[in-house]
Amino acid sequence: MEDDSRDAPLDRREAILIAAARLISKRGVRGLRVEEVASEAGVSPPLLYYHFASRSGLIRAALEHASEQAPSLALRRSPTGKDGYTAVRTALLAELGDDRAVRENAVVWGEISASAVFEPDLSSDVRRVFESWCATVSEAIERGTDDGSITISAEPDEVAQILITLVDGLCTRWLSGAIDRERARELLGGAIERILR
Amino acid sequence: MEDDSRDAPLDRREAILIAAARLISKRGVRGLRVEEVASEAGVSPPLLYYHFASRSGLIRAALEHASEQAPSLALRRSPTGKDGYTAVRTALLAELGDDRAVRENAVVWGEISASAVFEPDLSSDVRRVFESWCATVSEAIERGTDDGSITISAEPDEVAQILITLVDGLCTRWLSGAIDRERARELLGGAIERILR
Repeated sequence: MEDDSRDAPLDRREAILIAAARLISKRGVRGLRVEEVASEAGVSPPLLYYHFASRSGLIRAALEHASEQAPSLALRRSPTGKDGYTAVRTALLAELGDDRAVRENAVVWGEISASAVFEPDLSSDVRRVFESWCATVSEAIERGTDDGSITISAEPDEVAQILITLVDGLCTRWLSGAIDRERARELLGGAIERILR
Repeated sequence: MEDDSRDAPLDRREAILIAAARLISKRGVRGLRVEEVASEAGVSPPLLYYHFASRSGLIRAALEHASEQAPSLALRRSPTGKDGYTAVRTALLAELGDDRAVRENAVVWGEISASAVFEPDLSSDVRRVFESWCATVSEAIERGTDDGSITISAEPDEVAQILITLVDGLCTRWLSGAIDRERARELLGGAIERILR
């Protein structure tokens, strides 16, 4: 298997990250063992260490990977003809989507974020991902104030912080079984409307 | 030590719950060992099992205990002369208080809630605590609409859901080091003002 990696190192790296996400979404990040991830990805532990250096390097990369897969990053792609309000609303509601990949991604993000409470080394990574997410949503909100679809009294950045925190809180409640996904989406939709209109 | 328990069973029970909260807030709930909690509380494991039956019974009781200690439950005490708006605002901001006990309590709640993703047995407990918290905040919001200090277009229960989810999300970000506590309080204060006025 290791020999393949010389031909397609990015595919191997990706396979390891997908395996890590699958295991984290099943059992959490606390008990995650590097050997298990390697086995799930069909690579040897040395190859895993070649790509990620350490367990915490792997967890950091898994966080980065989850953030790149986040549904609301669709906002970063070229404009779709939607007004700013519709773009923000669609993107944020997609974070509570009915799709295995969305759920798995949300669990990975929630788990790594919750682990950062006990592993301060992860804090700066979690902070960076949040800030980048916030900047994306904030830009889309500005687009909405420019095209007249959004009316807010506070700064776009502050409103974006509130909205992504709300998405994050609702995801936690949904994933922990404390609220139904449909109810979470209703609450989010109502809040987006009241906050952005 | 066990003999003391016959004289003051509630004190022993409380001591075990305090020890559990201390250990969960230090290292999380996933690695929590019953023997360690017993030792931290200065009781024997059999006495712990006498009170809580099982590890998951102990975790459930720790969640209940944390919810009883939540700063915003001050709302349940007899009216303090504050208007509804001030009462809600004060209570919710207190969840982001600069106090070791508040922080410890928030970590316990966040940890058990995050664990419920992987331990569905905990879901109904997490849901119940959320619903009870929501009902408390919702009643205070109604008091505010009655006394004219709060103006909302949605139902009090829906607004309460949004506010407590926001508090919860900001707590997670604060505890994981992704946002400063002071910034989290500013964001929450601004959101409360815009949502309730």
